[in-house]
Amino acid sequence: MTFINKLNAVWKAHSSLLCVGLDPDIAKFPAHLQGKPDAILTFCKAIIDATADTACAFKPQIAYFAALRAEDQLEEICAYLRQKYPHIPIVLDAKRGDIGATAEQYAREAFERYNADAVTVNPYMGFDSVAPYLEWKDRGVIILCRTSNPGGSDLQFLQVDGKPLYQHVAQLVAEKWNTNGQCALVVGATFPDELAQVRKIVGDMPLLVPGIGAQGGDIQATVKAGQTANGTGMMINSSRAILYAKTDEKTGEDFTQAARRVALETRDAINRFRAA
Amino acid sequence: MTFINKLNAVWKAHSSLLCVGLDPDIAKFPAHLQGKPDAILTFCKAIIDATADTACAFKPQIAYFAALRAEDQLEEICAYLRQKYPHIPIVLDAKRGDIGATAEQYAREAFERYNADAVTVNPYMGFDSVAPYLEWKDRGVIILCRTSNPGGSDLQFLQVDGKPLYQHVAQLVAEKWNTNGQCALVVGATFPDELAQVRKIVGDMPLLVPGIGAQGGDIQATVKAGQTANGTGMMINSSRAILYAKTDEKTGEDFTQAARRVALETRDAINRFRAA
Repeated sequence: MTFINKLNAVWKAHSSLLCVGLDPDIAKFPAHLQGKPDAILTFCKAIIDATADTACAFKPQIAYFAALRAEDQLEEICAYLRQKYPHIPIVLDAKRGDIGATAEQYAREAFERYNADAVTVNPYMGFDSVAPYLEWKDRGVIILCRTSNPGGSDLQFLQVDGKPLYQHVAQLVAEKWNTNGQCALVVGATFPDELAQVRKIVGDMPLLVPGIGAQGGDIQATVKAGQTANGTGMMINSSRAILYAKTDEKTGEDFTQAARRVALETRDAINRFRAA
Repeated sequence: MTFINKLNAVWKAHSSLLCVGLDPDIAKFPAHLQGKPDAILTFCKAIIDATADTACAFKPQIAYFAALRAEDQLEEICAYLRQKYPHIPIVLDAKRGDIGATAEQYAREAFERYNADAVTVNPYMGFDSVAPYLEWKDRGVIILCRTSNPGGSDLQFLQVDGKPLYQHVAQLVAEKWNTNGQCALVVGATFPDELAQVRKIVGDMPLLVPGIGAQGGDIQATVKAGQTANGTGMMINSSRAILYAKTDEKTGEDFTQAARRVALETRDAINRFRAA
């Protein structure tokens, strides 16, 4: 099944637009995992099992694995997801961007080595830096458009023909690059008005929306601005708020239970504002 | 020694502006290396030893290693360079770009794990996506400006206040981001006029210039457009033309001798057009 079809199916089946980001930071792991050689794998599998039915996607952030020489654990996490939760898309957050011959290697990394359903990529180098990913017809390519960080405005808000650059990127992708219906865009939750602008430009194209949770984006404004007519169209990502949820000491809750509680709260908070 | 100081010293000591790109493609390796478990390491070490005195930098392209699950061999290659050729900068070509917390992880990947002297990064997410690399005060940050691929124009040539976007990037980096003299820019050899524009904007800032050799950029035009007043200021990259140089069967030349011959020819071709 293609990435887009998988996403449509899981939005419905799980009644959820929540994407659970996997950003493993060992210093924040529970004490009993500290110092274990496969701590990242154990931690991520526990989070996955605790939140799978609340999520429409899992998004491992490859930088956290690369800094820790833990690519092998990322491979195992992706294989675990494919095997146990084959209906939930894996979004590899890699934000790659390079010329064609090199992009082919990055596509192999994402789609063959990690067997991800989709990968995030950077548009700065243009269409031929994106095209090699599109050769993988059943996979998705999620292109940075308007990012949730403060510095995002440095380039993305430069005015081109009276419109900010990020809107040109949205238009380029919608009108030219999305030749086979495989594309999606990254648009941060921290700018709901801009999310609404992008939604207008791209029709029903899926949006990956980081920036709620630890980054402080407003859920109501985000959902209202970004959803499609049928109340879907978004993977709203939360990473740290779920992974490192504060456990409730009175109830003896462990980290997986705390993660599940926050994931359910986030899913439900999103659903409250979705169109029927 | 800082990246910039190292670069200035090796430009002089080796009388070379040639950067040797390490893009290991096993299918193109000599027959006797095919199928060996550490073929990449063996190949790259042989290329390094054959070309070190002709080069001002080595630039491993991480995508080729990542696609082949060969990060351990990349670590060994970087360690080999650090140990045997500590005066030659290692430029990790990774083109990373992500928000601050994630960029910190990528900086650790580049500067701690691989111990690179400099890393290439993408400017699309703005200054706070670049700042974490600048915390490593002795390292360099090489920011994509005008790339050598045809699709580079899709975004980089959009007009912002009557100037193409890539010139804004050059200006941003020169005037705002380069707070500690650690920055350099990527500007492709395929557009000499634009290289000259960038040189005007950024003063003596080093430029990493891909696009000669297999990509067809003109050496004379590149050197004339991009050099500084003292005839340096550039790392002119060649990867495939050196790594996979055709051996001369009449002389019984092996792949390292062929690589050395092409590296010397390229260094000399560059030097022919340098200011005194």
